[in-house]
Amino acid sequence: MTKKGMLIVLSGPSGVGKGTVRQAMVAKYGQQFRYSISMTTRQPRPGEVDGADYYFRTKTEFEDEIAQGGMLEYAQYVGNYYGTPLRYVNQMLNEGQDVLLEIEVRGAMQVRSKVSDGVFIFLTPPDLHILQKRIEKRGTDDSATIAKRMQKAREEINLMTNYDYAVVNDQVDKAVDRIEHIIASEHLRVARVLDTYQNMLGED
Amino acid sequence: MTKKGMLIVLSGPSGVGKGTVRQAMVAKYGQQFRYSISMTTRQPRPGEVDGADYYFRTKTEFEDEIAQGGMLEYAQYVGNYYGTPLRYVNQMLNEGQDVLLEIEVRGAMQVRSKVSDGVFIFLTPPDLHILQKRIEKRGTDDSATIAKRMQKAREEINLMTNYDYAVVNDQVDKAVDRIEHIIASEHLRVARVLDTYQNMLGED
Repeated sequence: MTKKGMLIVLSGPSGVGKGTVRQAMVAKYGQQFRYSISMTTRQPRPGEVDGADYYFRTKTEFEDEIAQGGMLEYAQYVGNYYGTPLRYVNQMLNEGQDVLLEIEVRGAMQVRSKVSDGVFIFLTPPDLHILQKRIEKRGTDDSATIAKRMQKAREEINLMTNYDYAVVNDQVDKAVDRIEHIIASEHLRVARVLDTYQNMLGED
Repeated sequence: MTKKGMLIVLSGPSGVGKGTVRQAMVAKYGQQFRYSISMTTRQPRPGEVDGADYYFRTKTEFEDEIAQGGMLEYAQYVGNYYGTPLRYVNQMLNEGQDVLLEIEVRGAMQVRSKVSDGVFIFLTPPDLHILQKRIEKRGTDDSATIAKRMQKAREEINLMTNYDYAVVNDQVDKAVDRIEHIIASEHLRVARVLDTYQNMLGED
């Protein structure tokens, strides 16, 4: 029996740099996991390849997938569907490969409800981390700026409660290292390895 | 408010090499955590220093500590008490320092019941890991040897279910690296950092 792979979900607020961190992870550790390619109904841009950049599908095909329960998560942006096809993810996981998803927070919550043993990583903006210092210097910022920043921070912290780990994206290479520690460590969790040990005994 | 430190409990079956791994961790990463010194009623050996090697106490003093709820865990071996005084552990945790305990499996279960947010690491013997190969070669071992080995493995796997992580002690430096990944990763858990983020907002 092949040990099932681990689903790693990288998400975070808009503009936090999810795509950059994901690209750096693929460049540095791409041999250790598979990156899940999204499905979309938008037109390919010049140079984009079906099955490499995206799975390009018609609106009807995409909606058929949804109807058949074939999407792990999906959403609509600017009139087009974007989502993660369940089939390829399951195929890679069943082959024992870890799969990385880099998706928006709404999509991540859809995945959370379906894959209870996934690893959910919330990338946080560095300005959340230095917020305390800004508040201490409150006198130097006007109160409207502070109130707006506080509101945004509050929303981001609320999102964070749905995740397993919070990783500050202060520097891309540091964020990538932190995520690598998380992945290495999650592979040692008793809940994940117990089956393997029990299989060693050759018992049910 | 100082962020509270993390309690790291290193345990595992007798003879797995807990002490060696703990010493290697202290030597390599000793600046990053405090090692909890045990309390005992046994006599100091030549060269052993009270408060450095052990806290040496009389039987009456030790039993007073137990009666006052002052022991995080304790056990008796060969007529002497050994245990972890709660006071020093709490003091270090409250100062924001991570604390490492290296204790027997029975003690670890006492700690588990008292410190729900501790990190519990089970060190596994490498022969558990290579058991499958041994079983595959069953013809070369006699069946009594195999049965005994299987029974020991079964007991060790049962113990493991009470822990968060399973770390194979195949090589001491590799085991230490794995534990370091676990510690780094646990510091990023949302459940541990959420307070810090909320404190940044200066709200209750």
